[in-house]
This record gives sequence, C-alpha cells and structure tokens, in this order.
Amino acid sequence: MSLPPCFASDNYAGVHPAVMRALAEANSGPAKAYGADPLTLAARARIKTELGDSAEPFFVFLGTAANVLALAAMTRPHHAVLCAQSAHINVDECGAPEKHLGAKLFTVPTPDGKLTPELLRPHLVHLGNEHHNQPRAISIAQATELGTLYTPAEVRALADFAHGNGMYLHMDGARLGNAASALGLTLRQASSDLGIDALSFGGTKNGLMFGEAVVFFRPEFAAEFPYIRKQAMQLCSKMRFIAAQFLALLENDLWRQNAANANAMARLLAKKLEGAPGVVIEQQPQTNAVFARLAPAVIERLQARFSFYTWDFERNVVRFMTSFATTADEVETFAAAVRAEALAG
Amino acid sequence: MSLPPCFASDNYAGVHPAVMRALAEANSGPAKAYGADPLTLAARARIKTELGDSAEPFFVFLGTAANVLALAAMTRPHHAVLCAQSAHINVDECGAPEKHLGAKLFTVPTPDGKLTPELLRPHLVHLGNEHHNQPRAISIAQATELGTLYTPAEVRALADFAHGNGMYLHMDGARLGNAASALGLTLRQASSDLGIDALSFGGTKNGLMFGEAVVFFRPEFAAEFPYIRKQAMQLCSKMRFIAAQFLALLENDLWRQNAANANAMARLLAKKLEGAPGVVIEQQPQTNAVFARLAPAVIERLQARFSFYTWDFERNVVRFMTSFATTADEVETFAAAVRAEALAG
Amino acid sequence: MSLPPCFASDNYAGVHPAVMRALAEANSGPAKAYGADPLTLAARARIKTELGDSAEPFFVFLGTAANVLALAAMTRPHHAVLCAQSAHINVDECGAPEKHLGAKLFTVPTPDGKLTPELLRPHLVHLGNEHHNQPRAISIAQATELGTLYTPAEVRALADFAHGNGMYLHMDGARLGNAASALGLTLRQASSDLGIDALSFGGTKNGLMFGEAVVFFRPEFAAEFPYIRKQAMQLCSKMRFIAAQFLALLENDLWRQNAANANAMARLLAKKLEGAPGVVIEQQPQTNAVFARLAPAVIERLQARFSFYTWDFERNVVRFMTSFATTADEVETFAAAVRAEALAG
Amino acid sequence: MSLPPCFASDNYAGVHPAVMRALAEANSGPAKAYGADPLTLAARARIKTELGDSAEPFFVFLGTAANVLALAAMTRPHHAVLCAQSAHINVDECGAPEKHLGAKLFTVPTPDGKLTPELLRPHLVHLGNEHHNQPRAISIAQATELGTLYTPAEVRALADFAHGNGMYLHMDGARLGNAASALGLTLRQASSDLGIDALSFGGTKNGLMFGEAVVFFRPEFAAEFPYIRKQAMQLCSKMRFIAAQFLALLENDLWRQNAANANAMARLLAKKLEGAPGVVIEQQPQTNAVFARLAPAVIERLQARFSFYTWDFERNVVRFMTSFATTADEVETFAAAVRAEALAG
Repeated sequence: MSLPPCFASDNYAGVHPAVMRALAEANSGPAKAYGADPLTLAARARIKTELGDSAEPFFVFLGTAANVLALAAMTRPHHAVLCAQSAHINVDECGAPEKHLGAKLFTVPTPDGKLTPELLRPHLVHLGNEHHNQPRAISIAQATELGTLYTPAEVRALADFAHGNGMYLHMDGARLGNAASALGLTLRQASSDLGIDALSFGGTKNGLMFGEAVVFFRPEFAAEFPYIRKQAMQLCSKMRFIAAQFLALLENDLWRQNAANANAMARLLAKKLEGAPGVVIEQQPQTNAVFARLAPAVIERLQARFSFYTWDFERNVVRFMTSFATTADEVETFAAAVRAEALAG
Repeated sequence: MSLPPCFASDNYAGVHPAVMRALAEANSGPAKAYGADPLTLAARARIKTELGDSAEPFFVFLGTAANVLALAAMTRPHHAVLCAQSAHINVDECGAPEKHLGAKLFTVPTPDGKLTPELLRPHLVHLGNEHHNQPRAISIAQATELGTLYTPAEVRALADFAHGNGMYLHMDGARLGNAASALGLTLRQASSDLGIDALSFGGTKNGLMFGEAVVFFRPEFAAEFPYIRKQAMQLCSKMRFIAAQFLALLENDLWRQNAANANAMARLLAKKLEGAPGVVIEQQPQTNAVFARLAPAVIERLQARFSFYTWDFERNVVRFMTSFATTADEVETFAAAVRAEALAG
Repeated sequence: MSLPPCFASDNYAGVHPAVMRALAEANSGPAKAYGADPLTLAARARIKTELGDSAEPFFVFLGTAANVLALAAMTRPHHAVLCAQSAHINVDECGAPEKHLGAKLFTVPTPDGKLTPELLRPHLVHLGNEHHNQPRAISIAQATELGTLYTPAEVRALADFAHGNGMYLHMDGARLGNAASALGLTLRQASSDLGIDALSFGGTKNGLMFGEAVVFFRPEFAAEFPYIRKQAMQLCSKMRFIAAQFLALLENDLWRQNAANANAMARLLAKKLEGAPGVVIEQQPQTNAVFARLAPAVIERLQARFSFYTWDFERNVVRFMTSFATTADEVETFAAAVRAEALAG
Repeated sequence: MSLPPCFASDNYAGVHPAVMRALAEANSGPAKAYGADPLTLAARARIKTELGDSAEPFFVFLGTAANVLALAAMTRPHHAVLCAQSAHINVDECGAPEKHLGAKLFTVPTPDGKLTPELLRPHLVHLGNEHHNQPRAISIAQATELGTLYTPAEVRALADFAHGNGMYLHMDGARLGNAASALGLTLRQASSDLGIDALSFGGTKNGLMFGEAVVFFRPEFAAEFPYIRKQAMQLCSKMRFIAAQFLALLENDLWRQNAANANAMARLLAKKLEGAPGVVIEQQPQTNAVFARLAPAVIERLQARFSFYTWDFERNVVRFMTSFATTADEVETFAAAVRAEALAG
C-alpha cells in the first residue's frame, strides 16, 4: 500500500536502511549491559573524535530526556533555565523540566525562536535575591523549533554572555544535523567549538529508530551524570543498540546526507509553493520546515488527505516538515495539491 | 569471534531473530508518531486479547520506567509503596521511585523475596496518622529478583489484602514470561486474573531490543497515564518500533518459548552443578537464575573467564542467569568450568 | 529610638497589641500539639462561622506555603496553574510552586494584575494533548500584587469559567482583609460566596506575628490535606499559638479595623502627593499600596532616608505600602519629604 | 482550670516566660522583613559566638524543616542519607525528606537509636555504582529519639568516618540542649567541636513558641542556603520574632536551665517508678524521656487520665516525656498514679 506523502514531522519517518543494518549487525551474541559493551565504547570514542576531546557523551532514549538531563546536571531546583517561549523544553515536554528539575523556566518571547543577550539581560535583575530563582543555564535550539538558525557568532555571543554571568549554555541539537548541513559546518564547528557546555545530540529526527546523546564539555557534569541518567530512568540495558545507530549515523557522514536531503526538500517545497494564490510562505526555510499561511477551509481539506500540523491556530499557520526520507516526487505531488486546494479557496 | 558463555543477566542477551525481523518489517515508510500508528494500535489490541478487556496497555522504554510510572498513577507523594527489601524498585533503580514519586518505600525483609499479608500488616499501624506516609500500593515481582515464584493463590491473597486496606497491587513482571512458563499458566492467568491493578509487562529481558508495557486494569489510571508518561520522558516518538516487538513476542507464544528455554537452561545448570564439591546451590531454580555459594578465590578465577555477578558479597553467593539465547552446550561448558574451579578450591 | 516612617511592606510592621495579648493568654500550661488543642479547634470553628459551613481551615506558617499547599491539593505534576505574570506565586516565591508541585505555571501578562476568562481562554487550546500540561487550577490574588481589586462579579465569572473547564479557582488572600474592607464586604462575601474552591487566608500582613490559613471549600481536598501539610513541613507543633492569633484577628472584626487603617493611609498618602511636581501617581490606590513614578535621583535620595521598594526598575516606579500600624502623622511626614525631594529633582 | 500533669511530649509545653517577654519586647515599631532586621543580625552573631566562627546560622520555622533543609544543602537526588531506622527523619516526617530531597534514606536498625561506623559500613558497598543512590550524608540525632546520647568521641568517630568516605555529618539537635546539659558540655563542645558539618539547633522543644536554626559549618552550604530556604517555604517574613526567641534562649544559658529541668524530671520519674510492680523501665533515662513497659490495660486506664504516647504497640512500651515546665509535684502525682494503676494490673 502506498501512503500519501507525509509532511507532519521528521519523526514520522522510519529508520534509515544503513541504521537498520547496523542494528542487525549489533545483534551477535551476548554483550555487557548498560553501556560496558564494545559498541558503546566505540560510539562514545567516535563522538569524541567528532566533537573534540572535551566531549563526554552519554546515550539516552529520547530527545526530551536529553534536554532535561543535560539541564539536570547544570542546575539545582532554586535555579532558572532561560529559554525562548517557543522552546521545545517550554512547550512540548508536558512540563518534564519543571517536574524533573524542580527549577523554573524563564521564558522570552521571540519572533524567530532565537535568543540574544539583549533579550536575556532583563532576567538577571534579581541575581542574588533569595526571593527569585537564580539564572543558571541558557538553553537554545539549533536549529530552532521555528526552523531558524543561529550563526556561529550568535551562539558564541550567547556562550560568552552565559559564562560572564555565572551561567552555562545548553544546545538542544535535536536537529543539529540540519543546522550544520545548512550552515556548511562540521558538527564540531556547529556545537563544541562555539563554547557551549552541553549538547543534546539528536538522532531520532535524523534517521535513527531511537536514541540521543547528551554530550558534556565540562568534566564535572560528566562525573555525576551516570547517576542522574539511571535515576531518571534513561539508562538503556541493551545500550549497544543505541550505540550501533550512532556509529552508523556518523559513518561516512550519513547524518549530513540525511539532513541535507531534508533541508533540500523543504527548500524545494517552498519554491514550488512560491507565488501560489492563497499560499503565504512565512519565511524562506533555513532547515527542514516550511511555515505557510492558508485559509482555514484549505487547511481542513488538505489535512483530510495529508499528514501535517497546524502550528498557529490563531494565524492559520501550518508547518510542512521534511525528513531524510522525503523524495522530490513526494514534494511535487504535495505542492501541486496545496496549490490546487489553495486556489479553490 | 566466539564469546565465552555468558551468565551475567538476561539483558546481556541480544534480540530474538523474530523480533529483529519484525523491526525490519515495521520500517516501511512514514507512520504517525507517539503511538497513533497502526502497529501500536494493533499491539495494544493484541495485549488486550491476551490479558483481558480491562487491560489498558501503554508502551515505555524500559523496565525501571514501567515500574515507577505504574506506581506514579497509583500514588501521591504522601503515600507509601510496600515492597520487599530485595525489590528491584528498592535496590536497583538508583532511587528513581523516590525521586519521581516523592513517596516513600516501606520495605520488608524477606528470605525469599516474597511478600505476604502477614509481613505487610505491621506497616498499617499508622493509617490515618498525618505524621506518616500512608500505604497506598503494594509492589511484588513475579518472578522475584531471587528467582522465586508466587503461586496464583498467593498473588490473589495479596490483591485481597491490598483492596481490603485501601491499597492497590502492582506486579513487576520484568520476568512475567519466565513465571508464567514455570507455573504453566497463560499470561492472563498469571497476572490480570489474580486481581492485580497494574502490571509491568516485561519485554527486554525476554528477547526484545527495548520496550516494556505498563498495563492498567482500572480505567481511572489509564485516563491520566498519557500525561504521566510524557512528563516522565517515556513517550517514544517512533512507537511502532516498540509495538512491532511486542507483536512478535506474542505471536505464536514466542514469549513462552523464550522463557521456557531460559528456565530449562537454569534447571540444567543446577543439575550439572549438583553435588559438585565446593558448590552449594542455594535452592532449586524456579525460573532462570541459579544462586550458588562458592569460595571467593573460585569466584575470582571464574569471573576472569566468564560474565556473572556476585549477588551477596558477605555470603559469597553468585547469580548465574540464563536467557532465551542460552544453549545446552554453553551450560555444559560453563558447568564443567565451575566444577573444575570449585574442585581446585 | 524613633524610626523614620516605613513604607516598604506590610510585613515590616510588627504585631497588633491585641494579637500579642492573645499569644500571652494562650501560654497557660500544656496543650496538645499539632492542632488537637482547644484553641485550634475554636479557631477552626470560628473561621467556619465566618466563611460558611463548607469551609475547612488548616493553619500553616506563612503565605507562600498557604498558596503552594492549596494548589498542591488541587493538582498533580502534569497539571498547570494559570495565573497573572505578576502573581506572587510566579514572581516572589523562588519557584516554590514548581519545586513542590512539579507542575507548570501558565502565566498571563496583565496590565493590572487581574485575570479574566478572555485572557485565560488561549491556554485551553491544548486540553487533552499529552504533550502539554493540563490546566487544572486558576490562582488569583485578592487584592492583587498591584493593589487592584476584583469585583465580586469578576471573581464569580472566573469561578464559573474554571468549573466549566474542569478547573478549580484558588484565591491568594494574603491581603483579603484589605480587599474586603475596600469593597465593603464581609470576608465570606469576598471569598467563599463567590464560588472559589480554596483560599489562602492571610494573617501576617494584617497584624499577626506569623500564621496563615488554607481554607478549602471542597471536602475531598480537606481529606488529604493533613498529609500534604505535614510532608510540606508546615505542621506547627505548638499550633495553639497560630490559632490564638486568628481568634484575635476575627474578634470584633479586628481584621477589618487593621485593613481599613492601612487602606485609608494609602489613600491619604496618594492625596498628599497629588499634583506634586515630579510625582506621577500610577493610579488611585484601591487598597494599601501607592505606586508612583519618580526621577531616579529622587528615588535614591528618598531611599537613603526611608524604607520602600522600587517596583519597576525600567520605568522608575516605586511602591509605598501602608499597614495596620501606619499613622496619619507618618504619612504627612513622608509625603512632605517626597514632595520636597521631587521638587528638588 | 488545672490540667493533669502531661507527659506526652516536650512540644505540649508552652513558651518559657522569658521567651514570651522577648517576643513582646521585639514588637516595637517596624523592622526590615526576611531577616535583615537588627534582632536577626544580633541572634545570628550570638549563635556564632556560641558555636564558633565557622557557624553560619539560618532560622526556619520548625524542626522537620531544619533537618530536611540541612540535608538539602548537602545532597542531590541521586544521593542517599544514612540514618537510624528510628530517626525522626525516617519515621515522623511523613516522607518530607524523600519528597523534598528526591533522595533515598538508607536506614539502619539499631537497638538504641545510635549509629556507628560499623553499622554504616555495609551501605558503602555500592559506591561508584550507577544503579544505587550514593551515600552523601549521615544524620544522627543528639539526643536520639530513644532518649540516648552519643559521647563526644562517638560523634567525632562518625564525623571522621563520614569525611573519610566522601560524606557529611548532620546532627539533628532538636534536643541538643538536653544532650549538652546531660553531658555537661557547652553547646559548642556538644556540636561544632566534634566535626559535624551541619546542625539542626532546636528551640521549640526547649521552651520557644516556634523556630529552629539550621547551622552550617561549611561556607559552601551557607552560600546557597537562602534560596533553598525560601523555595522550601521556610523564610519567615517577620523573622525578628524567631531571632528574639533565640536571643532569650541563649541569654544566661536559659537553654541549659530548661534542659536541665526536663532531664532532672525524667530522672526523678524513673526513680519514683523504680521497683514498682508491673512497671519495667527500659533503661535509665539519659535525657528527658522515660520508656516503660506496662500491661495494655494499665496503659489504657492511664491514658484516659494523662497525656502520653505508646511508643511500641507490639511490646507495650510507653514514652513519658518531660519538659522545661515539668514540676516535681507533677512527677510525684503522675508516678503515684502509674504505680497504683500498675499494681491494680
């Protein structure tokens, strides 16, 4: 049965064939549990090669956990985490940060999902005042939840701002591959080289079955993290099966191929919709999401045929998201349908 | 490369080939995320067929989470969970229950890992007293962490005791398959039919790559559970890949074949060690673990060659654990080695 | 030594003499601890007389605890509490709600510190979606932190909105006395009669030494509350000494006399500052706070002589707060000083 | 109305007259809130004088909070606190430690409520193993909940053991005065001089109305504590009224007079009951509690006339507790009644 093209999310995609092969190969006899196996050791070493000697990677099951546990290592309950109002940690994790950390998020409204030192500075006014949570971590997403990108200089500026004010910088890299690909950078240039203290290195949205890595760039966080991970119910017993996937993702820069395809398909889709009557592209896609305004009736008819999400119910903005598996044919088919429905009004 | 036989834990084993095939087959194009896909719907229906109409199954990543979240649905922080001192939730989860629930465990020393109403009754003395956590849930493991089994009547008695005192009964079924196989029961006869309120239905230790099911038998727990699961960082985005594994496990009673092999291999190992000089078998294995006493020097030499854990450092008791993948040849090889080393003293 | 007039906060004031007398009288021999004493029983009965038969009062030490624990009875960690961005629970409690509840605050920017159903409705958009905390309680302050007042009809509308959407309404009445006095209502007319589900009944800011009451209007909350209070470290052993203070506060409507004085002194201060060059009164005081804009240099010089807080550092708004103990002479002295300094510029 | 003698608890007693006078004197005009007032500064200085320059005292409302927050400064959720099974933090705080810390208590059965390095050592077996909470703090009560005392050398040995194993030592001094008095030591000799890292310095059970002090002997704990206290809802706004009580308690060693009386009355009671038929004194009282075994019917008849608690329902052990306010006449009256009822059988 052939499904209609799907633009709902990059986690609607399946598993890249090379990753699936790696899983099968990893399944050869017994191996030590909880990460003491050779594949996990190899994958951790491979990530250090990629991100630099100071990188201390730990595997967890999913992106929400990567974010929350990276922040758990950095904060205590009386601290605050500064993030964009649109951040995944604020909007899409059912309050996992507050529940697990006990800390507060200080959120900043932003037009494009990106923080700046200027936007953050007002939250420092109560430093040293016991009545207020004390800012301890800044969390940014690269790429952001709005599909936008920080330049390397912008990330560096936030790292400097954080460190200059007694804080740490965390990068939610659920779509780090898409960002690095779009910026023409290596993973290292896009993350560790910019002064960040911890990274959620995403895999699931870039072709894995499951699994993310929390990567610390400060040894004091790494020392305590095994206990934090276990207590947070994120220690995988057959860890070799996460490790094998990461090895596959880093082999021959599969991560870049996957991300590049997703990004290219989003650009293609935007191009195909350009100028279509009844379709307003919010902004040129920088990574793998296209945000478009459509009439409510058009949205309704399209959603009866295709999978995608309404992003902003008040403004009738929808999100079309591409993945490693999206093909140009699917984009053509879908774009034609959108144009036709939008024209019909 | 051929590894030496491994008797460390059933989670050192890999993935059953049928499960691996099911994973590959599940990887066909896009599917809805977070459990709205057809495979998850099918797997949930399949579990209801197996465990009864009142069963409400939810997939999570791992066993610790299955236990803690089943209890999260049942308790508030001022409650207490009653369990054996040797319970996995007390000993092996790095305090995840206390951290996540905020509640207290009331633990009971037991010789065999099994609770009884008589052992629990003293913990009811402070019912209604605001200075003390209020007992709300009893948690038992079937099979227990010591490899022992509750009879159906014993579970039923605990369920009645729980319900008669305003409590619920949770079964940690990380090794439910081993128990049902050993008792000659269906999964339903071994769990839902006995009056339990929630079940951790284990998969990983019986041949899956990852994934467990929390199954509730009361609709009020099921209603809130989606939020509890998401907030606890246990909502798998590509959930079809857990569902496919459970479908494979339940297909043609694969769960029973796997468990039966593990149990048989433990019995075989015990038999092969019987009467060996310097080897004291603690008790006849009821499921897939053999507990034996050996001289410290013997343990040391054996651990240099084979994987297994010391269970009790004071009494020099080791645990030999078998799995779905253990072969009779491996048992023979290993038993011979144990006998030889024990003889050497 | 005569101190300069103090307009920093109503908790800078001491204890009303009648309250101090009641404390001394309560100190006659032994009494049962933890609230089983006659004074506590009498004070609880007295509050029920005041607020209606459905009122279930519990004493705690302080206002932050009254708020957080009232909400603890209403929510679980996956819920959300809706409140004004300027709410005490959001701004001034060092994240105690998030730490203790594990839940999230959904905050609403408001010009006057007051919520309305219209302002809250957008937060209901994700009802039933497991990725988002589920709104369960609305918390309002009466009077608000900005010194403004809800009309009875406005509170009633919020109660109806809450109940119509599966939520509860909590009133932070740290300054309930000031509100009831200003509105010419009884405590009951200002709280329980309006459909609220729980009340933080403030004492400390209206002349007590310490102590607040959490009052529930639903028996299911009251049933669990003793455990919640004890576990939250808010069960006072010598509780008679809180109870005695509340009895004094309710005797002969002392609460109203105290609040009326505080309100009157704020009005007087506003009147004395009216039209003064360099002084902009933000709005006519409705209760016991005057918010005024002054030049930074003026603020600095005044704060060297008198105690008061800057409320908004960006807009140079200060808060002058009066109490039960503020005298007309003090207001005259202070107003003259403000006028003089403002004139000097 | 003259009440019958009360031997239920030292918190059934009222407030010492000198403390009540201090409260009245503290009530002179406005004062800075939250501990910035002169009385709080004086009381903190006074405690430093008493306990040494390294002492960093902070006032909280009650003993449970003093214990939990002292431990909060020392631990993270993946840590464990080692304590006696009979410890107040384990038995009488409704799980406040687990709820607030997220950490686990490792409890040790003891005959006399006292820990030793030997009893604790087995809990170190899993140091460095991510599956287990990591021991970080030892908490002892001086005097213990069983009325027993640590010798200075015993406390020192525990401090050395703690520090030698990466842990801290906390002393629950709810009855530190009773202990110091019984041992003939100064407060400092009984606490800070023995190498402890934090102290709960009790006031309420020794004649105060409310209020305890958490005292740290390491600056790193003190630095974060203001936020921990506020977030835990233990920051008293009119703090001068706790401070004034502590000043009174330390003035002319009132603490010692109070404690000495309580201890003497317990000794007197034990003496008066010595040899009485039907009365078995468990052990000679070291501080202000007498534990005695009586027939169930005798307990019942006595409790109808006097206030005291059954300590051990299985062994029919009751606790008679004396306080600063207990008189020799009350002891005589009560002892006579106990002897008579016990004789009647």
